[in-house]
Amino acid sequence: MSCITHGVLLAITLYDLVDKDGRRYSPYGWRVRMALAHKGLDAAVELCWHSDKEKLSFSGQHLVPVLRDDDHVVSDSWKIACYLDDAYPDRPLLMKDEQSRSFAKFINGWTDTIIGRPLVRSLYLDILRSLHPDADPVEFRKRREERNGATLETLFANRTKDFEELNRELAPLNQLLRDQPFVTGATPAYPDYIVFGTLQMPRHLNRVDPLAASQDAVIRWREAMRGLFDGLADRA
Amino acid sequence: MSCITHGVLLAITLYDLVDKDGRRYSPYGWRVRMALAHKGLDAAVELCWHSDKEKLSFSGQHLVPVLRDDDHVVSDSWKIACYLDDAYPDRPLLMKDEQSRSFAKFINGWTDTIIGRPLVRSLYLDILRSLHPDADPVEFRKRREERNGATLETLFANRTKDFEELNRELAPLNQLLRDQPFVTGATPAYPDYIVFGTLQMPRHLNRVDPLAASQDAVIRWREAMRGLFDGLADRA
Repeated sequence: MSCITHGVLLAITLYDLVDKDGRRYSPYGWRVRMALAHKGLDAAVELCWHSDKEKLSFSGQHLVPVLRDDDHVVSDSWKIACYLDDAYPDRPLLMKDEQSRSFAKFINGWTDTIIGRPLVRSLYLDILRSLHPDADPVEFRKRREERNGATLETLFANRTKDFEELNRELAPLNQLLRDQPFVTGATPAYPDYIVFGTLQMPRHLNRVDPLAASQDAVIRWREAMRGLFDGLADRA
Repeated sequence: MSCITHGVLLAITLYDLVDKDGRRYSPYGWRVRMALAHKGLDAAVELCWHSDKEKLSFSGQHLVPVLRDDDHVVSDSWKIACYLDDAYPDRPLLMKDEQSRSFAKFINGWTDTIIGRPLVRSLYLDILRSLHPDADPVEFRKRREERNGATLETLFANRTKDFEELNRELAPLNQLLRDQPFVTGATPAYPDYIVFGTLQMPRHLNRVDPLAASQDAVIRWREAMRGLFDGLADRA
C-alpha cells in the first residue's frame, strides 16, 4: 500500500502530507484546509508521505496539496484557492475581487520567500526525523543541502539567527495586526490562512516557538486563528 | 521668510519637502502627490525645508507632508490618504474597501520598515548635502548617526550591502508584478503609490539606481508609474 487512506464518499478529495506519527504539518496543506473550512466545503482526505510520486502521479507532479473535485485536478495551494473561489463563487470568498487577489498573491510570495525560508530551514532536521518510513530521507537531505550549501545539522545550529531574521521580517505584519484582528480586517480571509499555515509548522514538528515576545499582535492573531472553525488547527 | 511658497487659491494645500535645488524627494510627499492626482484633486503647494518647525507649527508637529483642506489639517501620509478617501468618496478611491485598506496598510509598513530602511540609509549623505540652507545639517546628522550607530560616511560606504538587502526584500513584489501590471491589479491604487514614492527617492537625490537587473518586473512597473498622470513623477 502506497499511502494511508482516510477517504469517504465526497466530491472533493484533498491529498495532504503526513509524517510517520500521522501529523499533517505541510504549510500548503494547512492553507487549503483552512480555505475549505472558510468556504464550508467538506473534503475526503488522502494522506501521502513526502514526495509520494506513485500516489500523486495522476496530478502530473509529486507535491501535495492536490485537490481532486470530480474531474478537476488542481495542484499548488495558490491555484487550489483560486479554483475554489472560481468553482464555488456562492460560498464565502477567499479573495473577493481583483485587489483582494492581488493582496493574497503578494502575501503568498512574501510568506514563501521571506517568512518561510528562515523558518523552514530551521525545521529541516525535524522534518527529516519525522519522515514517513516509505519516504526517501537520503533524497530529502541531498536536495536541501545542495540548495542551501550547508548540511542540515549546520542549518539547525544556525537556528537562532534564522529566528532573528524571521522576527525582523514579521515587523510589518505585527504592525498591521496591532490595528485590526485579522490580516484582511475584521474577519479572516485567504491572506490570513497563507501566513498561518506557515507559522503553524513548528507547532506540529518540534513545538519550539520561533516568535519573539515583541510579536505581540502576531501571537494574539495566531491564537485567534487556532480557534477558527471549532479549533480546526488543533485537530492536526 | 521661512519657506518657498508656490501657493495659489485652492481649497487644498499640500506642505511638501524641498531641498536646496528645489527638488521634492520626500517619499511620503510623493505618496500624497500621486494620491491627489489619482483622485483628480488640485492642491496648492507650500514647500518647506527639512524639519521646518516654524512653517509647520500649525499642524502640531514638524514633518511633511501636511494637508490642509479648509479647516482640516492632516499630517502623516497614511492618514492623509485615508482622509482623502473619506472626504472625497465620489472621486476614484485609493482604497475601495476594508480589505483594500488592509492591503495598503501592510504595504505601507513593509515599504517603510523593510524596503525603505536600507534604501534611505544609503541616501543619508546625499540628503545631507542637498539640505535647504535654512535646515539644520548638524541636527540631521546627529539624529541619524545615533539611530544607526554609525557615521553617515560609514553608512554610505555600506551602500552595496544595503542595495543587496533591498533587492532581496523586493522579491515578492517582483514576483507579483510578473503576473500583473500594477501592485493592485490591472490599474494602480494607493499600494502602488506607496512603494513608488520610496523607490523614486534615488532618482531625485543621486540618480544611482539601486535595482538589480533581476527586478525586471519592478523596473517595468516603475516605468509605467512614471508615465501616470501625464508624467507627474518626472515633473519633480
